[in-house]
Amino acid sequence: MKKLIEGLEKFQAGYFSLHRDLFEELAHGQKPRILFITCSDSRIDPNLITQAQVGDLFVIRNAGNMIPPYGATNGGEGAALEYALHALGIEQIIICGHSHCGAMKGLLKLNKLAEDMPLVYDWLKQAEATRRLVKDNYKDLEGEDLLEVTVAENVLTQLENLHTYPIVRSKLHQNKLSLHGWIYRIETGEVLAYDSVLHDFVAPHSRLPAPEPEYNFHPSCEIKKEQA
Amino acid sequence: MKKLIEGLEKFQAGYFSLHRDLFEELAHGQKPRILFITCSDSRIDPNLITQAQVGDLFVIRNAGNMIPPYGATNGGEGAALEYALHALGIEQIIICGHSHCGAMKGLLKLNKLAEDMPLVYDWLKQAEATRRLVKDNYKDLEGEDLLEVTVAENVLTQLENLHTYPIVRSKLHQNKLSLHGWIYRIETGEVLAYDSVLHDFVAPHSRLPAPEPEYNFHPSCEIKKEQA
Amino acid sequence: MKKLIEGLEKFQAGYFSLHRDLFEELAHGQKPRILFITCSDSRIDPNLITQAQVGDLFVIRNAGNMIPPYGATNGGEGAALEYALHALGIEQIIICGHSHCGAMKGLLKLNKLAEDMPLVYDWLKQAEATRRLVKDNYKDLEGEDLLEVTVAENVLTQLENLHTYPIVRSKLHQNKLSLHGWIYRIETGEVLAYDSVLHDFVAPHSRLPAPEPEYNFHPSCEIKKEQA
Amino acid sequence: MKKLIEGLEKFQAGYFSLHRDLFEELAHGQKPRILFITCSDSRIDPNLITQAQVGDLFVIRNAGNMIPPYGATNGGEGAALEYALHALGIEQIIICGHSHCGAMKGLLKLNKLAEDMPLVYDWLKQAEATRRLVKDNYKDLEGEDLLEVTVAENVLTQLENLHTYPIVRSKLHQNKLSLHGWIYRIETGEVLAYDSVLHDFVAPHSRLPAPEPEYNFHPSCEIKKEQA
Amino acid sequence: MKKLIEGLEKFQAGYFSLHRDLFEELAHGQKPRILFITCSDSRIDPNLITQAQVGDLFVIRNAGNMIPPYGATNGGEGAALEYALHALGIEQIIICGHSHCGAMKGLLKLNKLAEDMPLVYDWLKQAEATRRLVKDNYKDLEGEDLLEVTVAENVLTQLENLHTYPIVRSKLHQNKLSLHGWIYRIETGEVLAYDSVLHDFVAPHSRLPAPEPEYNFHPSCEIKKEQA
Amino acid sequence: MKKLIEGLEKFQAGYFSLHRDLFEELAHGQKPRILFITCSDSRIDPNLITQAQVGDLFVIRNAGNMIPPYGATNGGEGAALEYALHALGIEQIIICGHSHCGAMKGLLKLNKLAEDMPLVYDWLKQAEATRRLVKDNYKDLEGEDLLEVTVAENVLTQLENLHTYPIVRSKLHQNKLSLHGWIYRIETGEVLAYDSVLHDFVAPHSRLPAPEPEYNFHPSCEIKKEQA
Ligand SMILES: [Zn+2]
Ligand SMILES: [Zn+2]
Ligand SMILES: [Zn+2]
Ligand SMILES: [Zn+2]
Ligand SMILES: [Zn+2]
Ligand SMILES: [Zn+2]
Repeated sequence: MKKLIEGLEKFQAGYFSLHRDLFEELAHGQKPRILFITCSDSRIDPNLITQAQVGDLFVIRNAGNMIPPYGATNGGEGAALEYALHALGIEQIIICGHSHCGAMKGLLKLNKLAEDMPLVYDWLKQAEATRRLVKDNYKDLEGEDLLEVTVAENVLTQLENLHTYPIVRSKLHQNKLSLHGWIYRIETGEVLAYDSVLHDFVAPHSRLPAPEPEYNFHPSCEIKKEQA
Repeated sequence: MKKLIEGLEKFQAGYFSLHRDLFEELAHGQKPRILFITCSDSRIDPNLITQAQVGDLFVIRNAGNMIPPYGATNGGEGAALEYALHALGIEQIIICGHSHCGAMKGLLKLNKLAEDMPLVYDWLKQAEATRRLVKDNYKDLEGEDLLEVTVAENVLTQLENLHTYPIVRSKLHQNKLSLHGWIYRIETGEVLAYDSVLHDFVAPHSRLPAPEPEYNFHPSCEIKKEQA
Repeated sequence: MKKLIEGLEKFQAGYFSLHRDLFEELAHGQKPRILFITCSDSRIDPNLITQAQVGDLFVIRNAGNMIPPYGATNGGEGAALEYALHALGIEQIIICGHSHCGAMKGLLKLNKLAEDMPLVYDWLKQAEATRRLVKDNYKDLEGEDLLEVTVAENVLTQLENLHTYPIVRSKLHQNKLSLHGWIYRIETGEVLAYDSVLHDFVAPHSRLPAPEPEYNFHPSCEIKKEQA
Repeated sequence: MKKLIEGLEKFQAGYFSLHRDLFEELAHGQKPRILFITCSDSRIDPNLITQAQVGDLFVIRNAGNMIPPYGATNGGEGAALEYALHALGIEQIIICGHSHCGAMKGLLKLNKLAEDMPLVYDWLKQAEATRRLVKDNYKDLEGEDLLEVTVAENVLTQLENLHTYPIVRSKLHQNKLSLHGWIYRIETGEVLAYDSVLHDFVAPHSRLPAPEPEYNFHPSCEIKKEQA
Repeated sequence: MKKLIEGLEKFQAGYFSLHRDLFEELAHGQKPRILFITCSDSRIDPNLITQAQVGDLFVIRNAGNMIPPYGATNGGEGAALEYALHALGIEQIIICGHSHCGAMKGLLKLNKLAEDMPLVYDWLKQAEATRRLVKDNYKDLEGEDLLEVTVAENVLTQLENLHTYPIVRSKLHQNKLSLHGWIYRIETGEVLAYDSVLHDFVAPHSRLPAPEPEYNFHPSCEIKKEQA
Repeated sequence: MKKLIEGLEKFQAGYFSLHRDLFEELAHGQKPRILFITCSDSRIDPNLITQAQVGDLFVIRNAGNMIPPYGATNGGEGAALEYALHALGIEQIIICGHSHCGAMKGLLKLNKLAEDMPLVYDWLKQAEATRRLVKDNYKDLEGEDLLEVTVAENVLTQLENLHTYPIVRSKLHQNKLSLHGWIYRIETGEVLAYDSVLHDFVAPHSRLPAPEPEYNFHPSCEIKKEQA
């Protein structure tokens, strides 16, 4: 704690003093562009790895960077998501998993957690879709390889889950939202992004997943769109 | 997004390259010392304001830096808390609220949120203890003053809630855990910490809240302690 | 009731006698090919409109042909779904909405139901994703047109929800499951099926939505697939 | 699916064309007389076994024809029940179990389902009243005999559960509702109905369970009734 | 508190000293004969009004003497019920309502409670079956008369709810349990008991509701019973 | 039951007749001073051990004298608590555990209850904070000693839980509420009270735990207090 309190003073005397204008402006309201959902893991610093400025990223962090399906939990995840999209008008969501994720390791040996960490156990059961998919489809993998696949599939599971949220579905329908799946590799510092055409995680500069346009079913709506 | 992807490259070429050894070490496991619970607000960067290194802070972020009472929710909060204390052996928890918090603003006009942001509404009802305390006890306040008090009281509510978690109660009993309540002021860059003796938020260097020792009821235990 | 009891006798003397072999065989076990999810509405008779034989359709019926997201409810929907896919090995799911649906009418005036039909109100809130999408995106519609669009969008919402179920995600990954969205029009007796390429509901013979193939992320898996 | 789509055409060209008037009338609204609650099992076709016309039966179907106690679940069961009684004014409820029911077989070996079909496991725990009654009271039975008794007792459990629903209790009090317990035997095509006087399932024509009249406690009410 | 602490001493010096043998025996285990469920109301003293000795009554007390349907709540009611029947072997349950019950008054003006007493509001919604029955069937009553009827109907609602508990259903089937509905009138000190034949609350000595015998469906069981 | 019904008559002819005035007054409304929360155990008679008069104690009784954290359960505990403090204006809460408590015995062998008493099992999991604290901190205890400590720690756990209730937190802040932890020893008839200064349970006359004053954070409030 001592070091941390010294850090507070160092921050105020250093970074804060140099960016006094920015913080003054931020005191009047935040206008982040990105909702960044990632793991609680101490090795991830969202602002550092994206070199984003203070005020750029609205951040949700929990064990395993999870967003359970709409209605499945009453924790803070859905509320922060709704606030980001409705109150702040954010139009980009990134779900960022990471290599060596302790939560995903736990998911692969779930039953061993029930006794000692019952809350972790209950929470990871929310990722049952990941667990079952991996168990049924990657029977020949183990160790690091299995973990790596689990991290990747889990990012996709959470992207699926996002689609069940009312505000997400509505914004996607309006082409006002895009969803991104990332994996951060601690050992190389690189980030891979899911490419929905290639069905793989690739370097993010190659191609960004476009928001899939959705359509209206009613003729009169279609006409309006064409005219617009 | 373009800027963010450029940031990823900048991070890898810059900070990561300079700290390659640190990240290599971290790839073998995290050993954070602090569980840092704060708001999703984009204006808070935990590592920046504490000048903590990558790997130092295990972070939970949601709207309003809340930890509902044990059993009240099945979101990620309790699981990350349990993981931090049981799996990682963390012995320091900081709950960090902040000035101009949108979640606390929402709490002060809760009924207006039910229609447009039902998930935010439901989540903030978890802070009913804060809302009722403020409503009953600070009737003469309004505007910024009221918000400021709400932010402060909410940090204390969350500290109370922490006490209901089995692992927290057990670790407190062993003197292996201390809890800290912070408020980060965006406009000044300063952090105030709750002082349980002064019953006020003060500059954190003045005095740190000591973990309140707890006692055993059984003579034989008492004796063991004395001998130890 | 009198008429119904006479019907029982008529069935036994008539249809049953004529198909005694079929029923004897069925007594040894069911082997349905289709999971048919539709509304409780009395005007829908799944076996009649599909001319399916006894034993062909495993049927879930509730108000509004809904399958809430995984984990959101603890009613019979998820269990019947899981039983159909895991225990019976069914590989085709049809979600069949219908014109003039009373549940969808209720969804469009939801707040009026809270007082008199609280359980209906609570249940329809599970279709909030449909309600919000329609409210935000079809502001120029009303009456029959609005209802028609709501029925259609609700079928798509339920298809999205299906993707969050562990067994569904795993089976889709194996290409062992396909999902179909239907609308039954009472007044014409026709059925329209959702075409994911056209993004519209069309006559079902034109083109069937192919199960979208999913991919493995791990090289060794890819290789196995190629060899297979 | 091919066969099913041909069935759709066959239905429209055949049955629908012959009953065009009926469907046109039904398009203006349903007026079913019976709420029929039965299992999702593919071997049950409610309209076929009762020879009821399209529009006669409002149908709830789930695994095990269950209606959990009021408040115990938030699935579609309670909502469809409430809609049937309040919005449609239905005055007859039939709960129809059946021989060889897979759900009841599952109930008799419940613990074996927890691993592979967790949702089925959770759902069947809603029939714990059936399971415990059978386990405690029919210790000498096994195999087909045990299953048969379980099916029968489960129908009675669900009838008990119905009594806890506000709308059911209120309608019973007004003598505006009667409840019926049925068992459909696939191998013989017969239906047995519960007789509350004989305390047994018998051929349904012998005697129908009369709605048990309930009484008011207040003198002034009693008088009104007598005058009426 | 002062008076209470003096009472403790008075008890120990007086009643306890006189019944030292009884308490010594009780210290080895309780063997109560009755599960007594009543309101938290301070005007009810179960041991006083029944003149029961210490050790005779196992007592559940909450606002409105309620036992919600099985599975509807996770409070202490179901657990204490199960413990009483399974662990203690109790074979008599009394649900005892009372005149001037504040909880029932609250139920009659439920919506007014939502704001100030949200937990009371949520709890009383568990008595919705009482509220709706009274609202639909006693439209001509008001004031004291309405309250009196509500208290009576609520006792019957709770008796219905009891039937949904697995252990209750199983014990009733074995004729090892009887259920009693009582109303205690504070102003007269009298207790009325529900008579299921008269369908009314009457003086309890006139006739006790016999446990309704239940029957087995399976011939072999019937035979065994006859032999036994 | 026969004895009990005779007791009713004895009460009415005896105690009631002698205190007719008191009961008449009570019929107009209760004004209890104490909320007394204790176990359902038949060996506890709150009015007897405190020698309190009818009308003095508002009583909550469940297995283990538990008040789960705010929001964790939807049983009657929170509602009765809220009613006592808000509607009745009670300012003293006593949580009274007792020696030889069957619920606490169950807590110490929790896993053995899951099969036979699932509701008791689920309920006792609400006392996980007690169970874990005892398991981690009193490893050298067993038998009666372990049970005694568990009873004591559980009273403290429930006191902690009380702090999470909005009305409790607000009243504590106003110095309008005090909380007391008691243990009743059946074999000696004595009661011990928790002393927060000594951190031990002692004879209640020695010192009463004073309501810990809480403070406002806002200067203007502080000033008002000083002036008052
Ligand atoms: Zn992680
Ligand atoms: Zn905030
Ligand atoms: Zn419908
Ligand atoms: Zn079945
Ligand atoms: Zn009462
Ligand atoms: Zn006890």
